[in-house]
Amino acid sequence: MARTLIRDLKSAVGKEVTIKGWVDVRRDQGKLIFFDIRDRSGKVQAVVLPKSPALDVAKDAGLEYAVEVKGKVNARPEKNVNAKVLNGDIELEVAEVTVLGKAEPLPFDMSADGFNLDLTTELDHRALTLRHPRLQAIFKVSAVIIDSFREFMKSQDFFEFQAPSIAPATAEGGAEVFQVQYFDKKAYLSQSPQLYKQIVMTAFERAFSVNKVFRAEPSATTRHLTEIVMLDAEMGFIDSWTDVRDMAEATVRYILTQVGTKCSAELEFLGATLPTMIDKTPTYSLKEAFEKLGIPEDKDLNPEQERALCEVVKKETGSDFVFVWGYPTKKKPFYVYPHPENPEVNEGVDLLCRGVEWLSGGRRINDYEQLMKHVNEWQMDPKKIEMFLEAFRYGVPPEGGFAFGAERMTMQILGLKNIREAAMFPRDMHRIDHPLSALD
Amino acid sequence: MARTLIRDLKSAVGKEVTIKGWVDVRRDQGKLIFFDIRDRSGKVQAVVLPKSPALDVAKDAGLEYAVEVKGKVNARPEKNVNAKVLNGDIELEVAEVTVLGKAEPLPFDMSADGFNLDLTTELDHRALTLRHPRLQAIFKVSAVIIDSFREFMKSQDFFEFQAPSIAPATAEGGAEVFQVQYFDKKAYLSQSPQLYKQIVMTAFERAFSVNKVFRAEPSATTRHLTEIVMLDAEMGFIDSWTDVRDMAEATVRYILTQVGTKCSAELEFLGATLPTMIDKTPTYSLKEAFEKLGIPEDKDLNPEQERALCEVVKKETGSDFVFVWGYPTKKKPFYVYPHPENPEVNEGVDLLCRGVEWLSGGRRINDYEQLMKHVNEWQMDPKKIEMFLEAFRYGVPPEGGFAFGAERMTMQILGLKNIREAAMFPRDMHRIDHPLSALD
Repeated sequence: MARTLIRDLKSAVGKEVTIKGWVDVRRDQGKLIFFDIRDRSGKVQAVVLPKSPALDVAKDAGLEYAVEVKGKVNARPEKNVNAKVLNGDIELEVAEVTVLGKAEPLPFDMSADGFNLDLTTELDHRALTLRHPRLQAIFKVSAVIIDSFREFMKSQDFFEFQAPSIAPATAEGGAEVFQVQYFDKKAYLSQSPQLYKQIVMTAFERAFSVNKVFRAEPSATTRHLTEIVMLDAEMGFIDSWTDVRDMAEATVRYILTQVGTKCSAELEFLGATLPTMIDKTPTYSLKEAFEKLGIPEDKDLNPEQERALCEVVKKETGSDFVFVWGYPTKKKPFYVYPHPENPEVNEGVDLLCRGVEWLSGGRRINDYEQLMKHVNEWQMDPKKIEMFLEAFRYGVPPEGGFAFGAERMTMQILGLKNIREAAMFPRDMHRIDHPLSALD
Repeated sequence: MARTLIRDLKSAVGKEVTIKGWVDVRRDQGKLIFFDIRDRSGKVQAVVLPKSPALDVAKDAGLEYAVEVKGKVNARPEKNVNAKVLNGDIELEVAEVTVLGKAEPLPFDMSADGFNLDLTTELDHRALTLRHPRLQAIFKVSAVIIDSFREFMKSQDFFEFQAPSIAPATAEGGAEVFQVQYFDKKAYLSQSPQLYKQIVMTAFERAFSVNKVFRAEPSATTRHLTEIVMLDAEMGFIDSWTDVRDMAEATVRYILTQVGTKCSAELEFLGATLPTMIDKTPTYSLKEAFEKLGIPEDKDLNPEQERALCEVVKKETGSDFVFVWGYPTKKKPFYVYPHPENPEVNEGVDLLCRGVEWLSGGRRINDYEQLMKHVNEWQMDPKKIEMFLEAFRYGVPPEGGFAFGAERMTMQILGLKNIREAAMFPRDMHRIDHPLSALD
């Protein structure tokens, strides 16, 4: 008999069906055995009655067994109906159970409510803990964030490209870059697709990418991973840096709407509330931000000041988001566009939410002469960025872009305490799947 | 005045508009200057009349200048209409030209027809050659292949995950893996998300990923890149390896249909014909394949035999595709499922097209005891794949999956001669953006 997905059982009441899935819950009540069976589409309660021919196999089928179950879909008696859950009004009366894959006894409580591991243990057993609804909910939200980014970019005519992970030996450097033994040469892992997305923009006008970037910061904090998923966008023919800001805002708004629609059950399960994005997100220059906080101007907002600014803006406008632009030119990379009226500050912009930076971007220098002036002032070796510079020798319009990390946005939307929770296979200083110390 | 995209000009006949784009073609005919202006949406012819106030600026605007052009959209006289191209029936009468970005004189002919570089020169200047319609067509097809893969996977309930690029020091090894200096330890670049996608499948039932893989093969052929985009899928609760084959076939069929629909202009420009996939792609065991070729059985098809088999199948059935399954168990990785009736061969399967392997996959071992038997026979260190093994201790149903490289499929669909043409920023033994020798 063809398999029925569990989400489709409600339209099979009174019929014989075959389902396949995992034993999610098992309760032995006197002579009855109750199972919750889980497949990719949902869960259903199944009951093995005392005289069922399935009893012998059912007796052995423990938690996380992969099983095929044949039976009849019954409507539950009124008093047993649970209207709040999928299939809360039906039950499968089991006629036959076939074990497709046995499971060892679980090393810890994997039930929806009983799951309570410290993060280290949870990560040490991620191959198993990935089956828990909490982790499934987190990674569903993460997948929707990434997919919604792509959807919105495509709707706005952005061209998807694959940014490279291996960077030339000479393009990047410093302590925070991973070095790769590349045949008899040295190469590096890319820290950012920045220069590549600008190149692609010069050919396709609008470009985006979803790619890995690698950071060798020797930091073991709750916010650091060595490998992250970056969502990058770049657009030509802008009139002002505010076009970039507006596109970033529209992108985040679309993502939040999609997460709200597609992940409402997951948000509720995780107790997460989406941040509020009002019709027009407030924008302040760095100078104005310090004025607003009533403190002396500085070169950047520190984490405490970011939190304070977000609180003030929230109180005044109801917005959880705030844009801050106009950072000191000399503090930012060579390609960021200096503000024409005051070149000491640039047209870079950050989006803060609930006290934390979510996204950064801005206008870039498009004029080749101005770019080369910065290359020299920033003391960069033009040979090391020759491919990038070539693109800018041939007609580049005013342009800009933005980028944000998928794990960080997942963490912030869901209010997770550690970014490792938002990466399925997190890598950090001390861990690649398993603690590195275990491999010594 | 708000910018009008060039594809929308046809509905603005008789109106004043502003367009923005690049000078794609320039022809000086007596006192007239004709431009083709290109933006992300298309091209249009613009004419500067002898008395136009735009004449001074237009005189300086050379190829690849980024410009803003104001003017009036006119219908072309009947005799000048070119019905074959976008905007072949209109023309922009230029009133004003503003240079947004100057271009140096081009180092070679970038016209649609005159472009004729050897591959090395083309790659040395990829930041510029990316603007050529040939390259734009190739990378549009590549983007549609990747996006269609994701679309189809999602339609079939596959869950998208991000497979890691950094692999633990102990998981992979051998000469063909890139080594990364990971703080004070060693790590490697992932050669395949195989074990990760199997882990994710045990939690999400169906999983897919679009991720980079890295191959340190010291081969400088037309088919080798060190960094490629892999499209991976894995599915649980299969009845047979043929379920995996059928899903792979449906995936390729969907991709071909999408490329045919979304890239018809690009296929025509590149002179490419999509391969024919008939209703049911012929499937042969390796043994049957050798019988069909009338040659003695061997352990694998060599490239010449793959070509011969495809030719025979094409002649007999009209299909450009053929599946071959049942390879010697001992020749394949430990996780491939041995055929129960003859364990000497396994349930791995390859999809060939036009003489070349496009995709491979098959059923995997799901039973933990059988898996551990193979781990021992293949002399693997269980500690090195502990995360993978943990997943298989807890109820794994019969399962399988498949994978294929985006660059190879792009190359094969378009009949490109070198895989470097199908990668936007190709990396090989001798090149990362620029030749490595240039960096010595």
